[in-house]
Amino acid sequence: MESAVQLFSRSGYDASSVDEICQAAGISKGAFYHHFPSKQQLFLSIIEDWLRGVDAQLFTQPGNGASVPQSLNRMARMLGFVFNAASGQLPMFMEFMVQASRDQAVWDATIAPYRRYQGQFAGLIEQGITEGSIRPEVNPQTVSWVLISLAVGILLQGVIDPEMADWNEVTRSGVQMILDSVQRRET
Amino acid sequence: MESAVQLFSRSGYDASSVDEICQAAGISKGAFYHHFPSKQQLFLSIIEDWLRGVDAQLFTQPGNGASVPQSLNRMARMLGFVFNAASGQLPMFMEFMVQASRDQAVWDATIAPYRRYQGQFAGLIEQGITEGSIRPEVNPQTVSWVLISLAVGILLQGVIDPEMADWNEVTRSGVQMILDSVQRRET
Repeated sequence: MESAVQLFSRSGYDASSVDEICQAAGISKGAFYHHFPSKQQLFLSIIEDWLRGVDAQLFTQPGNGASVPQSLNRMARMLGFVFNAASGQLPMFMEFMVQASRDQAVWDATIAPYRRYQGQFAGLIEQGITEGSIRPEVNPQTVSWVLISLAVGILLQGVIDPEMADWNEVTRSGVQMILDSVQRRET
Repeated sequence: MESAVQLFSRSGYDASSVDEICQAAGISKGAFYHHFPSKQQLFLSIIEDWLRGVDAQLFTQPGNGASVPQSLNRMARMLGFVFNAASGQLPMFMEFMVQASRDQAVWDATIAPYRRYQGQFAGLIEQGITEGSIRPEVNPQTVSWVLISLAVGILLQGVIDPEMADWNEVTRSGVQMILDSVQRRET
């Protein structure tokens, strides 16, 4: 899987053959097909692994009684951390997107977690409304999509040019701006 | 160029040969190389065309004395319009990104306009500070990157699943949230 990620990142999914992956990994084709029925299945396993890592970093830490705005700010700081640690893997992230736009199985594997994230963020905003930290008239679904869009845009631009902006600062400020707008104002 | 966009969108840049492009366009290879020295040059011309279209839609309309927040809201509505009109071209947009991450010439052609957009949005925020509609303590560079990140994230997700969310509504709300945060509050 590591050899495949390196090859896909450098040459793209389509241009990387099972032969080349086996050669890079130093394994036989028999060993490859023992684990993965096809190159596509290998690709899907890489997506699953990648998403499990994102899940673990973003959603598994307990809230410790933090308010929803505090949790979102913590996540914003962690996105920067995930981003820095995973920056070598990001060309792979774009391969997921390109393949997803062309292939139903990849599409399903990519979209299902997206919808899950969207649901988790929307749930968090609803929790904020319940606890009184977020204004009750905001639409949790829309706020959730705005947060995810911001994160996806920052990740993508980080692939193209990590040095172009301070992406940690953009993440932190962007989330804070959205919170400024949806938080119940102190009176 | 139209035939190439169709082929690149369907099969990807790497998998589409000059032969196939010529066949789809019904032209000879001689005619192709009369206009473009290489497949890469054709690709760069497509990027240029695409970006000229974005420029024309977003930045050329006169402000008509509108305030900066009004202009940004107008742009948000127009991004939705650009997005709907160009949705068939969006797989191409992802090809730009993938190729840019691998190829210096494509990288330059893609990054230069990005930096220009960033400068234009930052200038707009500065103008808002000058006219008094935007709080003087905000950082125009950061706000500009947050706006661009939001737009890029929305465009990318629209490629993957146009039906997943009401992207026009996400765009409009996201820009409004950022404005809520940076606008000078009425007292």
